[in-house]
Amino acid sequence: MRTITLLTDFGLQDPYVGVMKGVIAALAPEARVIDLCHLVEPYQVPQARFLLMQNFHYFPQNTVHVCVVDPGVGSARRPLAVKARGHLFVGPDNGLFSDLFDDAETRVLDRPKYHLKNSSQTFHGRDLFSPVAAHLAKGVPFARLGTKIADPLRLTTGAPVRIARRVWQGEIVHIDRFGNLITNLEAAQILPLAPRHLELKIGLRTITERASHYAAAPDNTLFVIAGSAGTLEISLKEDSAARKLGVGLGAPVEVEVL
Amino acid sequence: MRTITLLTDFGLQDPYVGVMKGVIAALAPEARVIDLCHLVEPYQVPQARFLLMQNFHYFPQNTVHVCVVDPGVGSARRPLAVKARGHLFVGPDNGLFSDLFDDAETRVLDRPKYHLKNSSQTFHGRDLFSPVAAHLAKGVPFARLGTKIADPLRLTTGAPVRIARRVWQGEIVHIDRFGNLITNLEAAQILPLAPRHLELKIGLRTITERASHYAAAPDNTLFVIAGSAGTLEISLKEDSAARKLGVGLGAPVEVEVL
Amino acid sequence: MRTITLLTDFGLQDPYVGVMKGVIAALAPEARVIDLCHLVEPYQVPQARFLLMQNFHYFPQNTVHVCVVDPGVGSARRPLAVKARGHLFVGPDNGLFSDLFDDAETRVLDRPKYHLKNSSQTFHGRDLFSPVAAHLAKGVPFARLGTKIADPLRLTTGAPVRIARRVWQGEIVHIDRFGNLITNLEAAQILPLAPRHLELKIGLRTITERASHYAAAPDNTLFVIAGSAGTLEISLKEDSAARKLGVGLGAPVEVEVL
Repeated sequence: MRTITLLTDFGLQDPYVGVMKGVIAALAPEARVIDLCHLVEPYQVPQARFLLMQNFHYFPQNTVHVCVVDPGVGSARRPLAVKARGHLFVGPDNGLFSDLFDDAETRVLDRPKYHLKNSSQTFHGRDLFSPVAAHLAKGVPFARLGTKIADPLRLTTGAPVRIARRVWQGEIVHIDRFGNLITNLEAAQILPLAPRHLELKIGLRTITERASHYAAAPDNTLFVIAGSAGTLEISLKEDSAARKLGVGLGAPVEVEVL
Repeated sequence: MRTITLLTDFGLQDPYVGVMKGVIAALAPEARVIDLCHLVEPYQVPQARFLLMQNFHYFPQNTVHVCVVDPGVGSARRPLAVKARGHLFVGPDNGLFSDLFDDAETRVLDRPKYHLKNSSQTFHGRDLFSPVAAHLAKGVPFARLGTKIADPLRLTTGAPVRIARRVWQGEIVHIDRFGNLITNLEAAQILPLAPRHLELKIGLRTITERASHYAAAPDNTLFVIAGSAGTLEISLKEDSAARKLGVGLGAPVEVEVL
Repeated sequence: MRTITLLTDFGLQDPYVGVMKGVIAALAPEARVIDLCHLVEPYQVPQARFLLMQNFHYFPQNTVHVCVVDPGVGSARRPLAVKARGHLFVGPDNGLFSDLFDDAETRVLDRPKYHLKNSSQTFHGRDLFSPVAAHLAKGVPFARLGTKIADPLRLTTGAPVRIARRVWQGEIVHIDRFGNLITNLEAAQILPLAPRHLELKIGLRTITERASHYAAAPDNTLFVIAGSAGTLEISLKEDSAARKLGVGLGAPVEVEVL
């Protein structure tokens, strides 16, 4: 049984995700479909890219990850499949897969026989990406899906930058239900250099408190923690750091270790 | 493996959907259950009816569609099963299945042996519709579920009306996460007659812009598009048409082709 | 095929639930995973406890119920597995399973071979509870998961109290999408004693109306109903009792039968 994951900005109030599963069930009855997340902020490719990269490797080898955050649906942007790191990825050529293209095989999905007939121009998640994923899960060879390409879109923004030996700049790439602000700054790269002291600047605030887990944190004080995505997070014990700081997705963050 | 879909107004904050799946898992361990949508507006039978009709045919033949938008639960309204168009439908007799009764077999669910014991009067989704769906998925013949009836409730409202050769009246039947306003006006019926010009009236506004896909639309301008449900939609590029117009479910729409 | 349920306060906007399913799929490909509910109010152990107790028995025997409402993650609070009433339960030792410990076997999850390597201190749902559930679903004997203990945390609050022969005190333990206020007062214990008259006090209001099902209730009047969880609920026909009363989780309720 092959696994297919779905990562979209479709939300949950519509039948969009359900009908994608219907298309998959009709073509690949044995596939198991798992929702990775459907509440990516509308059109937020950088957020979806981060969530995908932090999580895909927990799934079984050869999982097919369908990612549809796709403001350009119906335009000339190409639909892609990518084979990388023992997993398969299906979605639009808009930078979602920027971090995967080294050592990857990338194909443009130009074989209509693997799509639904009468594909719409507004819902490729249902009409194109789901059927392709189902065919992959059923065992259609990757090379048959379309023509190999060498020039997929790579976003050059979105990666953190080390601007000095002890200073990194990154950004908020996700805000979770608990109001934790999740940065793209790798904890394993930074925290070993900061045995004593660290300053994280966001907006007009500088945060210096740290905690190894939430219960060990001080009350009513913003603190920095190595989050479950492997990056630095800004948290507030049993409260929302996002609300306290009033910042949103994309807010810049700078960390200095002292 | 048979597929069962769930379409309800139960939302996601409660265990109502989860416990329905528990009941199904206990009775029909092999069935695959797919959420079509659970955020139908509370008690909005017309919305659920539209979402069902636009989507059920994407699922495998013989899928059992459980639909529970049921303000009359526990009253004299009858519980039904409907066999139509190669699919099976289970839910209350309140008009949800109005569009399916031609060429359909309809039965009232009056055999308690296919329900949970000690059925509540407030949650037939768990106690009656889920077990019936599970028995159908396990192969219990449709005719055994209950007595055949010929008088299910048919809603006569909710269908669009052609009031002149070039004028149709319909309504907003769904608003999606992106703020697209989805009408019940069939695009394939209207757009071929409007090669040049079309006027869509909603509230105090008249919309004349059209686009074939979202990326091709002008910025900051409401436009009409053939949506993925096959009906006309009112959209705003990377923004919410619903918020811009301030209209809700049921708002009347009139289209004239010129 | 074994069933695993998930009950958390993780919400739906994050990939937290999805990645738990990925971990389970990688370890126990045959297990079926069902979401019981993920919108428990953040950190609300009493609410999760109630939702679990009202619903677990609808699932197949030997289902593994993973419950993660866990403000103490990473601290000294122990991770547990509980075998009780023909089901298995996995989650933190913070009172979630208070109602299950009589006639139960309880073990602390102290065998790292059944957890993910490099477990984080912030996400035991992914790194510890999901892999343990997957191993149980695969057939690892319960006794191998860890050391037996006799002193799990039992919450002594949260149970209703009969303060006089005809008077009970309880609280609001859940508010559903429809605005129904769900109490922890057992309907089967109270209603038979109130053939004629009942007074339910909440906040400054006294409610005396009753209904057997929603459609039978008077319009615009708060009423008491035996809810699908088996406890008394306060409802408002096709409207929100919670909004009308302005009360929240934990609000005290007193019932007197006359």
